[in-house]
Amino acid sequence: MEKLTLVKVGGKIVEEPQSLKQLLSDFSKIKGYKVLVHGGGRSATALAAKLGIESKMVNGRRITDEETLKVVTMVYGGLVNKQIVAGLQAIGVNALGLTGADMNYMRSEKRPVKDVDYGFVGDVKEVNADILADLIGKGVVPVLAPLTHDKEGNLLNTNADTIAGEAAKALAGHFEVTLMYCFEKKGVLTDENDDESVISNLTPELFEKYVAEGVINGGMIPKLENSFEALNAGVRAVVITRADLIHTDGGTKIEL
Amino acid sequence: MEKLTLVKVGGKIVEEPQSLKQLLSDFSKIKGYKVLVHGGGRSATALAAKLGIESKMVNGRRITDEETLKVVTMVYGGLVNKQIVAGLQAIGVNALGLTGADMNYMRSEKRPVKDVDYGFVGDVKEVNADILADLIGKGVVPVLAPLTHDKEGNLLNTNADTIAGEAAKALAGHFEVTLMYCFEKKGVLTDENDDESVISNLTPELFEKYVAEGVINGGMIPKLENSFEALNAGVRAVVITRADLIHTDGGTKIEL
Repeated sequence: MEKLTLVKVGGKIVEEPQSLKQLLSDFSKIKGYKVLVHGGGRSATALAAKLGIESKMVNGRRITDEETLKVVTMVYGGLVNKQIVAGLQAIGVNALGLTGADMNYMRSEKRPVKDVDYGFVGDVKEVNADILADLIGKGVVPVLAPLTHDKEGNLLNTNADTIAGEAAKALAGHFEVTLMYCFEKKGVLTDENDDESVISNLTPELFEKYVAEGVINGGMIPKLENSFEALNAGVRAVVITRADLIHTDGGTKIEL
Repeated sequence: MEKLTLVKVGGKIVEEPQSLKQLLSDFSKIKGYKVLVHGGGRSATALAAKLGIESKMVNGRRITDEETLKVVTMVYGGLVNKQIVAGLQAIGVNALGLTGADMNYMRSEKRPVKDVDYGFVGDVKEVNADILADLIGKGVVPVLAPLTHDKEGNLLNTNADTIAGEAAKALAGHFEVTLMYCFEKKGVLTDENDDESVISNLTPELFEKYVAEGVINGGMIPKLENSFEALNAGVRAVVITRADLIHTDGGTKIEL
């Protein structure tokens, strides 16, 4: 199978013209087939504020009422996604911006109300990777916005990390997939105060050892558990790194 | 060649949930391959107003400064386009929302400043129909937003009628294309006060006769001249009709 790199970047880096330009340049240098998944939360919060809509977050997730859904549809599906697509086209990358509704590539269901009513937020139920894989094989580079749909006419807000993980797992049937999560550090650190203490390679055994020793802790644990889940579902490698290192061998590489 | 119907609808009909639902149902009943092109001007004007941005129109065209470009990118490329796509998916139409930047299907150039500086408005220079035709052949129904790009990183605002005409001409190399323009009347009328006085069939000869007699006048003349231009470029037929009649044989059919 051919190699495919799926890169997930957060909102901040794609929301400022200078950092976006650098990111797209770095992304274009990745060899082989590729997919980009983006956030856009800061722009959504900013637009909502201008429109007098309060942004409510619970556990880091946006409560998405009807008006907020319109805001994220405009910002994620329109502004951020299309600026990335146009920026990639300018440097010769044949980008195609998609929400889950487009070609029904990712279907979700509205999250059931338990302790929290998240509103129009979707949990992924089905990924149709065939048509994506076909386009990728023709040189198209999908740019995935953090929006899905329920195939009943409703768009749903879906976390970009989730979109990345689900797309990577589904594409693993067609490609040898490396899933790359970008965050603000160079990788998983053994010492949070030392940015150079990057763990280059992580296995399930090493992960358990580091957790037992308290070297890996806090929010990094669920992030890595999700990574192992993707690996168990067929993704070849997960890399956790900083956005400016995506075209290098830097960061923490996680393999089974 | 197989038949393809390309339907252009204005903003108003796609911007209200009830009329949108009816339109999508009617559109889904069109047999054979199809493409939908939409506007969204009313929503853009409404969002701009909420954000304190004044909408300036000259000759019916929006002056698109940097802030207005963001508004139309959000509204045309995000809100309106994705609501249509999700609505079509719900009734079994495999829609894919596109701006000209997506897969570089439509490249334009910023309109040169003459008497009026339209700002970030694009005049179409190149349509890449091959990849669109390939997707259409696989059952995908493109939903085209009135946005293009210059392949230098800039999105550009482009009139939906123009998008429809240019896409129809380019797709005429792959399909037997009928280009359908929807407006508020049932067709081209011989008596503007009689909604039933629809000219069923129009040819260049009849058009000249009606213009000479003053039966066809005003804004309908450039609309029909554009239609003949599309026909001369290979489009099989142009139909001018009301949106609720797109799945019928109604309206004015124009052929060479």
